[in-house]
Amino acid sequence: MSKKYSIGVDYGTQSGRAVLVDVSNGEVVAQSTKMYTHGVMEEFLPDGTRLEPDWAVEHPADYLEVLEVTIPAVLQESKVSPEDVIGMSIDFTACTMLPVDKEGVPLCFQKELQSVPHAWLKLWKHHAAQAQANRLNQIAEERGEDFLARYGGKISSEWMFPKIMQILDEAPEIYEKTDRFMEAADWVTMQLTGVETRNSCTAGYKSMWHKKKGFPSNEFFKALDPRLEHVVDEKLSTTILPQGAKAGELTEEMAKKTGLLKGTAVAVANVDAHVAVPAVGITGPNKMLMIIGTSTCDIMCSEVEKEVPGMCGVVEDGVMPGFFGYEAGQSCVGDHFEWFVKNCVPATYYEAAAKEGKNIFTYLTEKAEALKIGESGLVALDWWNGNRSCLVDVDLTGMMLGMTLTTKPEEMYRALIEATAYGKRMILDTFEEAGVPIDELYACGGISKKNSMMMQIYADVCNKEIFIGESDQTPALGSAMFGAVAAGKDKGGYDSIFEAAEIMGKVEERTYKPIPEHVERYQALYAEFKILHDYFGRGANDVMKRLKTIKADARK
Amino acid sequence: MSKKYSIGVDYGTQSGRAVLVDVSNGEVVAQSTKMYTHGVMEEFLPDGTRLEPDWAVEHPADYLEVLEVTIPAVLQESKVSPEDVIGMSIDFTACTMLPVDKEGVPLCFQKELQSVPHAWLKLWKHHAAQAQANRLNQIAEERGEDFLARYGGKISSEWMFPKIMQILDEAPEIYEKTDRFMEAADWVTMQLTGVETRNSCTAGYKSMWHKKKGFPSNEFFKALDPRLEHVVDEKLSTTILPQGAKAGELTEEMAKKTGLLKGTAVAVANVDAHVAVPAVGITGPNKMLMIIGTSTCDIMCSEVEKEVPGMCGVVEDGVMPGFFGYEAGQSCVGDHFEWFVKNCVPATYYEAAAKEGKNIFTYLTEKAEALKIGESGLVALDWWNGNRSCLVDVDLTGMMLGMTLTTKPEEMYRALIEATAYGKRMILDTFEEAGVPIDELYACGGISKKNSMMMQIYADVCNKEIFIGESDQTPALGSAMFGAVAAGKDKGGYDSIFEAAEIMGKVEERTYKPIPEHVERYQALYAEFKILHDYFGRGANDVMKRLKTIKADARK
Repeated sequence: MSKKYSIGVDYGTQSGRAVLVDVSNGEVVAQSTKMYTHGVMEEFLPDGTRLEPDWAVEHPADYLEVLEVTIPAVLQESKVSPEDVIGMSIDFTACTMLPVDKEGVPLCFQKELQSVPHAWLKLWKHHAAQAQANRLNQIAEERGEDFLARYGGKISSEWMFPKIMQILDEAPEIYEKTDRFMEAADWVTMQLTGVETRNSCTAGYKSMWHKKKGFPSNEFFKALDPRLEHVVDEKLSTTILPQGAKAGELTEEMAKKTGLLKGTAVAVANVDAHVAVPAVGITGPNKMLMIIGTSTCDIMCSEVEKEVPGMCGVVEDGVMPGFFGYEAGQSCVGDHFEWFVKNCVPATYYEAAAKEGKNIFTYLTEKAEALKIGESGLVALDWWNGNRSCLVDVDLTGMMLGMTLTTKPEEMYRALIEATAYGKRMILDTFEEAGVPIDELYACGGISKKNSMMMQIYADVCNKEIFIGESDQTPALGSAMFGAVAAGKDKGGYDSIFEAAEIMGKVEERTYKPIPEHVERYQALYAEFKILHDYFGRGANDVMKRLKTIKADARK
Repeated sequence: MSKKYSIGVDYGTQSGRAVLVDVSNGEVVAQSTKMYTHGVMEEFLPDGTRLEPDWAVEHPADYLEVLEVTIPAVLQESKVSPEDVIGMSIDFTACTMLPVDKEGVPLCFQKELQSVPHAWLKLWKHHAAQAQANRLNQIAEERGEDFLARYGGKISSEWMFPKIMQILDEAPEIYEKTDRFMEAADWVTMQLTGVETRNSCTAGYKSMWHKKKGFPSNEFFKALDPRLEHVVDEKLSTTILPQGAKAGELTEEMAKKTGLLKGTAVAVANVDAHVAVPAVGITGPNKMLMIIGTSTCDIMCSEVEKEVPGMCGVVEDGVMPGFFGYEAGQSCVGDHFEWFVKNCVPATYYEAAAKEGKNIFTYLTEKAEALKIGESGLVALDWWNGNRSCLVDVDLTGMMLGMTLTTKPEEMYRALIEATAYGKRMILDTFEEAGVPIDELYACGGISKKNSMMMQIYADVCNKEIFIGESDQTPALGSAMFGAVAAGKDKGGYDSIFEAAEIMGKVEERTYKPIPEHVERYQALYAEFKILHDYFGRGANDVMKRLKTIKADARK
């Protein structure tokens, strides 16, 4: 039998990327990226219609274009025959949702609706449904809805129902015209296969769905708005497939457009973070994967379902079948460092870096790495962009303490890195205190591969060994793995994502082991972080919120 | 009668500066500066003998050289005849002290003692007597010594007795050989006049002397060390003259060296900060003068003697005769801004400033000035160099809070300036709560003249009008005024420092008036500062001290 391949397509915020992967070893043979033609629309629709503040819209046609451009490109680059591509699947940002008609056509494709903002696709970072999210949270709390605890106590304005509520509030005629609201992930998969499937990952993490309990009750939705009483029956689907399932097979039309064969297996869609788990070779519970970028997303499988304070969600089958998938997160990681370098690093450092032929991050990191633990006398709270887990509070802000007249930029830089490590440790402690054990840490994303000082600090602060994902295309690779599972062993793929992960998922040889002396030193510093975390984060002194109010008033 | 003049000599840390002043209007007619030939010696004595860490020594001969260089220079530059110079006086850093023999000759002038560090003059910032200061404070507290309350509860290691104690501890033979310990201020005045006088300012603020109660008791000194029982009688003088008194007249020898006439009136010496009060025209109580430089020194006359928590001292006649002179201070003001500009201002700002032909402070200040009050959402504690008043705690460190990903350098810069204003307000509140009223604020020093944004912020935060001293040579001008008083009205001078201040002391026409809307906005921000000030400064969370301990351990 000839070598077999599968394709994964990772839909990011600005672009889509396809990889073609060797199923026998997980090697990425070819890749191709397509920027979205219309990009993120935050001010205007394509026809010039103005958007309100906090909107973020995309064009569904751009996603199909990604398939038509990148899949032929990887086939051509790799010279792999379409016969040898046994499966594919996609992953997406979420909740990125759109209203479609009975035929599954996006409402925004209808000429007469092209100027209506609510007819369009709302990107995950559309933040204009905060009022609706607040209403939803308040009513859920008043009614004692138990689903709240599965989401750390709060539903985000980014999720499916606040977005639906906003449409109903502001454009009831669009709500009326909508046959179904879909995740973009499921909609693109429907375009590929011709059949509608819904994946348990987005349903569970973004639409408050539970494998055993289903969606929240009609009574709850009625309490939100009487017109929403039957929203689930009328506008969603209750047929939800676990991650790892097959969604269907490539249609003739899409086969033509992509150059693949009709009938190629397609897996149910996934979320970009969650799909990364098998791609680093995780096949079982209690191994937390940190996807480190501007922010960090933590994903972990567990054998137990617990209510962990401040987690983003726990979903059965939400990451890999048979496990409870947990998600948590830190709102600000790489963004901290970008901010610091842009706003706080003096000219003299840039000059010295240039003289040594180093970029400023490398230069700063080298200086920071030379410091002993605790030598700076600094401690910071990593809340420049609020706190996701475990406080779920966007109104918290950053803090740094311990500065003297001899404090140097590299000391503050390191303090920021350490603050994110303490924030991570706080998440681990919270999980473990809630009864969800964590044995090992995995990391992927550019920072995890580039900044070994940071990874060692994480290992020392968290007192856990850290494994680094080998691929720099982790989500797309994960999607390709699910594609191979959709194809199945008979076709040269795998019967389960666990089998696929064993062979196709890989970590680097280098791991980061906690150094006992460092662990002990960081213990004392983390204790200080914890006191400050609780003082500023749990209501003893709400100065950060009051300052935000003062700030908002001042800007009026 | 021809125009009359007087001379003031201001002895700073690095140099001495003479001004020749028109007695009729306070105008500085000529000035001259001499850097000390030996400078500050922190590592080696002139003969190469190594000094221990935290030492700071100067050469007394350098001070005489200042007189011999700068006074002839101002006479020559101004073409003023020595007959028309009616008086002079000096001011000094304090406590800057030295051991002398029976004839008043510094021990370090003796050849056989030139290699003995303790034979030398200890500069105010000699910080090697901390162990002695700690012992003094502990014993004073145990014995319930009431003088402690006059100094905010703590005696500094910079002051006279800790320095004497260090000499006794480490070089008892030098203590033995010492006939008297003198303030450099009094020693130089003795060189000018041939008679020994002691000024009430240094005696009161630096030697724990009280006009009615005198020095601490022999029993107290005995408790420090049996050999110190009679230290006051044996090694000091109890003849202490109030500020504004005449010390004596210029000797023939010094007349020759300076070009002045023998018999020229010389006032008792003063401290550089305190002498500035009449120079800005203050003639009565409840007007606090802020001498703003790297740190800020606050001086005020009052009709009442109260124990103000955290003040540096209260001394009867210590500033102007007939009043209780109060001193308080902020450890870090200009130093904050220097630190910030050196360590936290990005290259892009330097480039933009250069393009606009502005220095970086001007550029940053303009940007900061455009911000509305509270717009940054930031608040800071101004403790980069510890806190002098009102917490008297060198182990406190800086804090900033409220940062987000959109926080800009000018916002942090303004937050630092505001923090020093809040620190000032805390001092004012503490004085007023202790029953010492403050009606107006005066400011002198470069920053007060250059940074109008900062002065307006101070006016708004403190809700007091601020007057700015006109002269940029305030201490030297003040000394010249005391010189004119020593000469007296008959000789063309003045009978009191109040008369002199009325005519020779001046403020700028421009004053800073609180703007009611700003006052109200700052009220809310100051309330936040106060909560944080007390939380971190008064023992609720001693994180700053624990981090300092961790830092010290890490550096071992």
